Amino acid sequence: MCDTCGCHSPSSTTIEINQSLLAANNQAAHANQHRIEAMGAVALNLISSPGSGKTTLLEKTIEALGDKLRIGVIEGDIETERDAERIRAKGVPVVQLTTGGACHLDAPLVARGLDAIERELKGEKLDLLVIENVGNLVCPATFALGEHQRVVLVSVPEGPDKPAKYPSAFHSSKLFVITKIDLLPYFDFPVNEATADALALNPDLRVMALSSVSGQGMEEWFDFLLEFTG
Amino acid sequence: MCDTCGCHSPSSTTIEINQSLLAANNQAAHANQHRIEAMGAVALNLISSPGSGKTTLLEKTIEALGDKLRIGVIEGDIETERDAERIRAKGVPVVQLTTGGACHLDAPLVARGLDAIERELKGEKLDLLVIENVGNLVCPATFALGEHQRVVLVSVPEGPDKPAKYPSAFHSSKLFVITKIDLLPYFDFPVNEATADALALNPDLRVMALSSVSGQGMEEWFDFLLEFTG
Repeated sequence: MCDTCGCHSPSSTTIEINQSLLAANNQAAHANQHRIEAMGAVALNLISSPGSGKTTLLEKTIEALGDKLRIGVIEGDIETERDAERIRAKGVPVVQLTTGGACHLDAPLVARGLDAIERELKGEKLDLLVIENVGNLVCPATFALGEHQRVVLVSVPEGPDKPAKYPSAFHSSKLFVITKIDLLPYFDFPVNEATADALALNPDLRVMALSSVSGQGMEEWFDFLLEFTG
Repeated sequence: MCDTCGCHSPSSTTIEINQSLLAANNQAAHANQHRIEAMGAVALNLISSPGSGKTTLLEKTIEALGDKLRIGVIEGDIETERDAERIRAKGVPVVQLTTGGACHLDAPLVARGLDAIERELKGEKLDLLVIENVGNLVCPATFALGEHQRVVLVSVPEGPDKPAKYPSAFHSSKLFVITKIDLLPYFDFPVNEATADALALNPDLRVMALSSVSGQGMEEWFDFLLEFTG
């Protein structure tokens, strides 16, 4: 077994038993979606590399929309409570899930997160539940968590070649967010090229570019969230 | 089965069959190491998130040390030949391995890469073989490839919390390289904090900080490579 994530080797043959694990995950994801809807909410699953700015984007989103939307957050990480602490400081319900080594969240783990969110809500409703996945542009794309929509993020410092090199998250997302565009002057990141590569993989993808630091493009993100929860 | 990488779910129980896959990988890694030594070389396995600057560091390394060291490169990616094309332009033997979805290289796949490098060398020797793993800070840490030393890289834009949040690669590496330090003025990245977190995980870790763009810290990296291959 792979100590970190249970991955099989790329050279090995497929293991049939994993099919049933994935089927069980999909079933749990379906149940999660019903529970999220019973809270009054719709859910996003944020997928990106480590350090693309997911948590900072969430902080700014809660600051800007906290009066209009009741937001809850599930944080996924391999270790540490750091991201949940940052979100908790913004005064919204949050739970930290640590995978203890695994490279992605899965639906049964998110179900435990929903237990904790429900305890915190005490019957109150939510409008939006954001699930911040483990920082990994590959493995999370395979695991439905119960989200209503999946968002893939790439930051300007990572480079424009990420859609072509890591296609799976782009196939399964509805929205591609380019983050940290305040850094465009310092990097060779042709936004049009990254966008074209992403659209070649998934012509239905919506693309937006923003900076949590400068505020550029944030209105479009906020409008998307208001429309998504509306 | 997980379509992208074959990961099990973090909530599921361990599958015993994976133990034998990992044992087979370790055996293949051992054989790879003998083949690398027969080429006259020692090998590094570079592990990082997508976009941390591994390929650019390699380009600059070949430019600076190409006269002193015979360098060969194995590039790992999920899709595309882009990184190998960049290295090939520098005039050294290179092979691109694409995993077709899997989130890490494994030793049997690297063995196929060695076949291609050997064909290109036609009996000539190498001093240094660099294996650039798939961009993923999690899963590659589990799979030995035949390397003599493992290097984990984190770029300044990713943030200083990566050692604490993604510990496994830091446990198994001998060297931690902080990249893109020309960007320190634009980011809140306390180098001492990231270093302390990494050393708490692995007190034997050597830490260096550099920028392929400004050249700062590159001499220490070059000295390390000359010592490592010497």
